[in-house]
Amino acid sequence: MSKLTDVPKRILIGRALRSDRLGETLLPKRIALPVFASDPLSSVAYAPGEVLLVLSIAGVSAYQYSPWIAAAVVVLMFTVVASYRQNVHAYPSGGGDYEVANTNLGPKAGLTVASALLVDYVLTVAVSISSGVENLGSAVDFVIEHKVLSAIVMILLLTLMNLRGVKESGNLFAIPTYVFVAGVFIMILWGAWKGIVLGETMQAPTADLEIKAEHAGIAGFALVFLLLRAFSSGCAALTGVEAISNGVPAFRKPKSKNAATTLLLMGALAVVMFCGIIALAMATDVRMAENPAADLLRDGVPVGESYVQNPVISQVAEAVFGSGSFFFVLLAAATALVLFLAANTAYNGFPLLGSILAQDRYLPRQLHTRGDRLAFSNGIVLLAGAAILLVWVYDADSTKLIQLYIVGVFVSFTLSQVGMVRHWNRHLKTEKDTAARRRMFRSRAINAFGATFTGLVLVVVLATKFTHGAWVALLGMVIFYGTMSAIRRHYDNVSREIAAAEERPDEYVRPSRVHSVVLVSKLHKPTLRALAYAKLLHANQLEALSVSVDAAETKALKAEWERRNIDVPLKILDSPFREVTRPVVEYVKGLRSENPRDAVSVYIPEYVVGHWYEHLLHNQSALRLKGRLLFTPGVMVTSVPYQLASSEAAKKRAKKRQDWNAPGSVRRGPVDTRRKEPTGKA
Amino acid sequence: MSKLTDVPKRILIGRALRSDRLGETLLPKRIALPVFASDPLSSVAYAPGEVLLVLSIAGVSAYQYSPWIAAAVVVLMFTVVASYRQNVHAYPSGGGDYEVANTNLGPKAGLTVASALLVDYVLTVAVSISSGVENLGSAVDFVIEHKVLSAIVMILLLTLMNLRGVKESGNLFAIPTYVFVAGVFIMILWGAWKGIVLGETMQAPTADLEIKAEHAGIAGFALVFLLLRAFSSGCAALTGVEAISNGVPAFRKPKSKNAATTLLLMGALAVVMFCGIIALAMATDVRMAENPAADLLRDGVPVGESYVQNPVISQVAEAVFGSGSFFFVLLAAATALVLFLAANTAYNGFPLLGSILAQDRYLPRQLHTRGDRLAFSNGIVLLAGAAILLVWVYDADSTKLIQLYIVGVFVSFTLSQVGMVRHWNRHLKTEKDTAARRRMFRSRAINAFGATFTGLVLVVVLATKFTHGAWVALLGMVIFYGTMSAIRRHYDNVSREIAAAEERPDEYVRPSRVHSVVLVSKLHKPTLRALAYAKLLHANQLEALSVSVDAAETKALKAEWERRNIDVPLKILDSPFREVTRPVVEYVKGLRSENPRDAVSVYIPEYVVGHWYEHLLHNQSALRLKGRLLFTPGVMVTSVPYQLASSEAAKKRAKKRQDWNAPGSVRRGPVDTRRKEPTGKA
Repeated sequence: MSKLTDVPKRILIGRALRSDRLGETLLPKRIALPVFASDPLSSVAYAPGEVLLVLSIAGVSAYQYSPWIAAAVVVLMFTVVASYRQNVHAYPSGGGDYEVANTNLGPKAGLTVASALLVDYVLTVAVSISSGVENLGSAVDFVIEHKVLSAIVMILLLTLMNLRGVKESGNLFAIPTYVFVAGVFIMILWGAWKGIVLGETMQAPTADLEIKAEHAGIAGFALVFLLLRAFSSGCAALTGVEAISNGVPAFRKPKSKNAATTLLLMGALAVVMFCGIIALAMATDVRMAENPAADLLRDGVPVGESYVQNPVISQVAEAVFGSGSFFFVLLAAATALVLFLAANTAYNGFPLLGSILAQDRYLPRQLHTRGDRLAFSNGIVLLAGAAILLVWVYDADSTKLIQLYIVGVFVSFTLSQVGMVRHWNRHLKTEKDTAARRRMFRSRAINAFGATFTGLVLVVVLATKFTHGAWVALLGMVIFYGTMSAIRRHYDNVSREIAAAEERPDEYVRPSRVHSVVLVSKLHKPTLRALAYAKLLHANQLEALSVSVDAAETKALKAEWERRNIDVPLKILDSPFREVTRPVVEYVKGLRSENPRDAVSVYIPEYVVGHWYEHLLHNQSALRLKGRLLFTPGVMVTSVPYQLASSEAAKKRAKKRQDWNAPGSVRRGPVDTRRKEPTGKA
Repeated sequence: MSKLTDVPKRILIGRALRSDRLGETLLPKRIALPVFASDPLSSVAYAPGEVLLVLSIAGVSAYQYSPWIAAAVVVLMFTVVASYRQNVHAYPSGGGDYEVANTNLGPKAGLTVASALLVDYVLTVAVSISSGVENLGSAVDFVIEHKVLSAIVMILLLTLMNLRGVKESGNLFAIPTYVFVAGVFIMILWGAWKGIVLGETMQAPTADLEIKAEHAGIAGFALVFLLLRAFSSGCAALTGVEAISNGVPAFRKPKSKNAATTLLLMGALAVVMFCGIIALAMATDVRMAENPAADLLRDGVPVGESYVQNPVISQVAEAVFGSGSFFFVLLAAATALVLFLAANTAYNGFPLLGSILAQDRYLPRQLHTRGDRLAFSNGIVLLAGAAILLVWVYDADSTKLIQLYIVGVFVSFTLSQVGMVRHWNRHLKTEKDTAARRRMFRSRAINAFGATFTGLVLVVVLATKFTHGAWVALLGMVIFYGTMSAIRRHYDNVSREIAAAEERPDEYVRPSRVHSVVLVSKLHKPTLRALAYAKLLHANQLEALSVSVDAAETKALKAEWERRNIDVPLKILDSPFREVTRPVVEYVKGLRSENPRDAVSVYIPEYVVGHWYEHLLHNQSALRLKGRLLFTPGVMVTSVPYQLASSEAAKKRAKKRQDWNAPGSVRRGPVDTRRKEPTGKA
């Protein structure tokens, strides 16, 4: 694996190694963890704050419920981790939520999960970048003063990086992720040491603020609803947990076991960090509010619009390490970096999911080529465009964006788990071995519990967040779903239309004779080549065809034709309006209607050039003619290329492009192990 | 010819008759005059004002020179008319200035004239629209308050109209032009009657203003320079005079004679109107200044930025008919309408000149098709874009724009007349008949005088206007000239590269054998058709080729192949990365390097669809593959189309598009008489 210092060089110098030698590079657990965990671990940078924020609506006294909410998140985290450990064993090919739902629940469920995941990828970018900018902003003023601009610039940078196709190495992920994890752990331990052993009082920068409760003293149903909303927000910590289940092929052997272990490790780390940050926030009296300008009071006066509410992780770090200290700045930088890496994972996942969907004909077929640059670029640009739109509309405010985020995650969690229950049911029907059956029963129980719990959370999220923004995410899902079903419907219709009948194919479509026509404008090398090639393919009749748009030129052509003794008859079509397309199309149609069982083969000499502007100068009439001829049944059109010297440039460009390397290969592993049949063993 | 009331209907309903039946509709003189004269006649709406404007720099006393300047313009007008009457006789095919210069002075002169004409077309739109808006604005306040906006909207309207391809009739031009001419004549006669016979004093609305001379009491060289500048501005009245010489084929027989008579008529009308308006302006004490805000004083105080300086024609009309009177409003409307028609002539001329230049390979070859919609549209959009840019930069101020206008006109006048002198010299060498020789001598004398006079004017224009904006027009000409020579150079290089050698062509390029490859993805009707067609054209070897991107699909394909007993061998290429292009290209290259003298013929089944979005869903891989294959020498690529049901929609659209009618046909006449050899008779 290459060194971290290579990265700037690679960005500057360009294309890296081809990816087909990547098959041998499998990930050990210590590298797999940061590669897959940057997304879920980075969410502890914003999830604890979101819990406090919602609770503050009922006043600072409601903060007392935060340990209970943290506990609920922990239980949910372990449920989800346990559930996905079953997925990892059952689908060692890396079948993601889409495939699990598609296989076990049918295409509609699959498409729903796919839509949810696509929306989620967009939101991963928007939320992670916004939160990253906020964290960076806690150390660098300029960034927070130009928040939307910074976020958009960051998205554009990531987009460019991914479009160029930088080759990744595991270390690229490992170093910032481990620095971040270590930083948070040191903060928690140092805070505990200072607070419990040394008995120091640590004060968050907001400790002296008061919170004006928007609904003071609420109780009963309203309180329950508020707690559920706080819990929903805390669930943001779970985003990205499913990533490992997509990446099993990238692990070293035993793949499934290593992936399951990594999943558990990731869950444990996330839980400790989440709870530690909440505990420190309580201990240092962090004060956060949904509308800080109005609801945070300093000496009884609202802090006003100019107030910047820093993320909880940065407030806690300030309390523990001291403002501006080395550790404080290091942690802020590592947090921002991990959040940007988390956003980057969406850049890998979005086009990959797109290629899987294209294979199932929910997206244009040409996108199914893995690592195809054009397909990849289209996906990247779509993702970046949508994320920029969201960042712009929501002022790069992570709190507002998180309202949209969690719906999609839980839609795919729930459907995936329900799918897993079905999976075990199916296998239990055939499995005879008692030990295996026992394992399956246990797995099914875990997945069933996971499905129930995540389903419940989905209902809670929908109920508490719908008007706060979840409807936008649902709308996005509906749009993706509708578009993709329309595309699939189109392909299905076409496929029915072109299905081969059961007669003998030859009789069915084969014309009896073929009449070849070579289009000629002048007598030069491209024309001679086209004539030679046309002769090579013996037709029943062969003639050259020229449209007379200029009497003098036509005369010269005829003379040259005779002088060179060309043994192909030359037919001239008149064109008083200097048109080319219409006379040729009408002539060919005429041939067809005279002999309806003849096919017509039209040869067009074509110039192969090297630059786009040369395209404007050549082949335009040929292209338009070809477009029109193809509408006539019984006609085929042959391009006989003539490579101009300048075409070398384009050839080189095409070769370069072929050596391009789609980002995200580290987490995908080699291809050949993918898309195999799932095994029944847990 | 159709009625004027048809126009709105046609705009709403759409495409009109095909133009190939237009050949029979030739123009009588009474219709030809307005068709060709809207441009030159409309310039009397601004040219007299420009003369007064420049003179005002030396104070109101300099107005006394205006009759002398008018006289100089009249002499120039008759010189140019007399000169072009020679062109009309010598080039009855309607050879415009470009062809005259190209034929007689060589390609560089031709290209210079072409560049000048292209710039002029842009300026015709910008100046006529701006002046039209100013004239309309003298009656309608809203228009003058939103001058730039109104001008741009007007340009967009004309553009849309021309893109749609509205069929014109001569009446469309005749009515507004005759109303305008009649209006101006009535105004002149009525003014003369009131002033001379009735002895009334008529007062222009600006008669009570004073002019603050920027350079009071200048004399000597400075005065001469100012007078020359005023004369240059007056020359704006000559723009568009050459139009008839392009349109000879549209006249009834005897074409040349009728065209010459119309030319003379047009000159006479323009001269009378120009002088009449200047005389009325003097009689009614019109006051105009280059910077009215500062240099026009009311009771000694500058009138300020809010002052709107109305065109001279509208000030005179107000003095003669009275402000807001029926005749005043009618004349303002007719003036604006004629100016818009003048702008419209550029929309016809620009793409026509483009198609002639394309024939001579100064522009992309595909533009040479006459009445080709795409070529036409590109020209129209380029013209409109450039005109809008000018209008926007120059605030739709006709006075500023006219500084740019006259250079191009006189470049083409001068070169065309010099070319005519050469023309006569050439013919005089061979002509024996004394009477004919005498006529030729006379014609040559006229053209020589014309060349000298217009050349002199060109020098005056350049000297007096260069810094006032003429440099912009020159820059535009240089850009056109550079681009067009570069295109021609490219075509010449390619043409040398592809010129057929003098050996026997067959030996030279003919490969010995051909290996056919049919690309197969699934076994459906398009594939079966491609197989059947490939068999029809007997190759030395024929095989089917499929790329395995999905093991299960490939297995199914193989089984189906056997089940159907297809007698073509099926070759499967492996593609672990689900790529299609690379394996096929490498396979084909392999075939070529094994047997370098074999040609390879690749058959690609192609779907023909009806809508652009369907294109995104089909053929993309095929297109990209084709693009790559064409770089390999010795390969030809055949598209075997399969027409999906939806392709009917596109077929219908294509047919509709074919029936489209390029605007401007009225003034071009039938094509078959064009581009013949010029006659030697005058």
